[in-house]
Amino acid sequence: MLVEELGEFGLIDRIKAHLKIEDIEILGPGDDTAILPFSEEKVLLFTADMLLEDVHFNPTFSTPYQVGWKSIAANLSDIASMGGLPRYALISLGLASNTPVEFVDELYRGMEEIASRFGLRLVGGDTNRSEKMVISVALLGECEKEYVCERSGAKVGDKIVISGFTGESEAGLICLKRRLSRDLPNMEAMVKKHLEPYPRLNEARRLAEKKVVCAMIDLSDGLSNDLHQLTKSSGVSARIFLDRIPISEGVADLSQRLKLDPFDLILYGGEDYELLFTTSDEENLPQLEIPLSIIGEIIPPEDGVLQIDKEGRKKRLPLKGYRHF
Amino acid sequence: MLVEELGEFGLIDRIKAHLKIEDIEILGPGDDTAILPFSEEKVLLFTADMLLEDVHFNPTFSTPYQVGWKSIAANLSDIASMGGLPRYALISLGLASNTPVEFVDELYRGMEEIASRFGLRLVGGDTNRSEKMVISVALLGECEKEYVCERSGAKVGDKIVISGFTGESEAGLICLKRRLSRDLPNMEAMVKKHLEPYPRLNEARRLAEKKVVCAMIDLSDGLSNDLHQLTKSSGVSARIFLDRIPISEGVADLSQRLKLDPFDLILYGGEDYELLFTTSDEENLPQLEIPLSIIGEIIPPEDGVLQIDKEGRKKRLPLKGYRHF
Repeated sequence: MLVEELGEFGLIDRIKAHLKIEDIEILGPGDDTAILPFSEEKVLLFTADMLLEDVHFNPTFSTPYQVGWKSIAANLSDIASMGGLPRYALISLGLASNTPVEFVDELYRGMEEIASRFGLRLVGGDTNRSEKMVISVALLGECEKEYVCERSGAKVGDKIVISGFTGESEAGLICLKRRLSRDLPNMEAMVKKHLEPYPRLNEARRLAEKKVVCAMIDLSDGLSNDLHQLTKSSGVSARIFLDRIPISEGVADLSQRLKLDPFDLILYGGEDYELLFTTSDEENLPQLEIPLSIIGEIIPPEDGVLQIDKEGRKKRLPLKGYRHF
Repeated sequence: MLVEELGEFGLIDRIKAHLKIEDIEILGPGDDTAILPFSEEKVLLFTADMLLEDVHFNPTFSTPYQVGWKSIAANLSDIASMGGLPRYALISLGLASNTPVEFVDELYRGMEEIASRFGLRLVGGDTNRSEKMVISVALLGECEKEYVCERSGAKVGDKIVISGFTGESEAGLICLKRRLSRDLPNMEAMVKKHLEPYPRLNEARRLAEKKVVCAMIDLSDGLSNDLHQLTKSSGVSARIFLDRIPISEGVADLSQRLKLDPFDLILYGGEDYELLFTTSDEENLPQLEIPLSIIGEIIPPEDGVLQIDKEGRKKRLPLKGYRHF
């Protein structure tokens, strides 16, 4: 059998079986971040992500500064989803021999810029020769035990909440691919959200400190995909109400222009790096600088993950979105 | 300017400048492992290495089990050189879609096998689609502050010591490349040293606990190259006596057969993962299961890194060996 036949999640399950992870504190692949013992009050958060040229970024769309920024942003978002604080990162680079040195300078400038905004220190790494560029980031964070958010904590009856707007990163990518003029309304902002995403670390930390989160995940692979991840980890199902998912002006506008279904963008578009969490305490959600929207609720596992349209008709929410294989 | 013109060390220096590392505890690229605050008694060791298909391993020579083994071994060797103990690793994989799943199974079996021998736990990672295979390992270890060995601690007058034999991994690679029959004397062992290197974690730990080490590095890029690294980090120079460097039977035999200069192998061959360290306390070196050889001494920086042949003639030891660009 080939990896592409098994699919990403099949592959992850197979790797998990190898890891023989009995320890509840160690999450393993598919959970993105391992929780490791540190001190009496705190745990270490340990996460790694690899970005590959032409798979995760396209040098004709992104400046090297943006590639550097995004490679760190993706990892920071994993720490955000745990309620943690980032501390240290190692960068392993694979670069072609004929890469201009200025490219490396700009790559690091992007990394340093986002790192400094979130208290992260880049403490080393490794450089290698490679035909296609590879950027592998390993990141260490920490979190007080009482604040740790996992994706496995959702309970029946919890409300499902998202931060900000989904689909914007995908809309930005469409603008880039179709070479649409960026001075159309909101396009510049959506392109920027795709190329220089801003991880919701501060927002996630506020939520964690207020202890209103039952389960949390960051939206890297699309709302549908990541909701399936969360419900699977928690052993529950979910129903979301399509008319409660906010649609940004930019997504609405682009969908109309290009005759796209906006729900294809907001449900299945990846790399928004917004937060998806569940809460049993929705009256006490903190006031954040980005909107929080209650889009549905957690239901028993046997019901399946459902979408309900504005007429009240329900159907399965397909597990699709960004796939690695 | 291109990366290949700058060279690996030039690139590392340039990246270091970006990192603005003032902290003495954080080493940054070129030192392979960052030393991070952990507790009153201990530090965290944080290291990462990337292995690329056709650069670091060749699937026609290596079984997937061996690729997995070696990817972990290289990182364990970095922890060994600090006197530390490995704890947790994350594996980020880039795999072609048409990779057989059995390949992934065998890769993980090799990783698990070496991990379990050294108390390392594989706690997660990331999988991605990539044309060429990429394996990126990030490893966390720990070390009591009093046992930490750095490459910057060498002082004038220290003796220079190596463990085991150098050049064997390179000799093994030559056997593979020239398709020499492996039943020639010692060839099987040298090929195995190339494909399944055994990191000197236990030996390094014994040395660290005995506090006989002033500076230590693992031999990944060749004796000459890594000696230059150590002396540069310590702000000193060194002289080594060629007739005190042990030459294994296998290297001697292969050199004679193929009319190679054995010193090309023992000075410049990479990936032996032996230890190179300096000591001011050579009477108290512990008895290990592998031989330790005193091959030279640390001298003032202005003298340069020198090799002295058996007639007592001295010349510069060239900085060459395995180069990444």
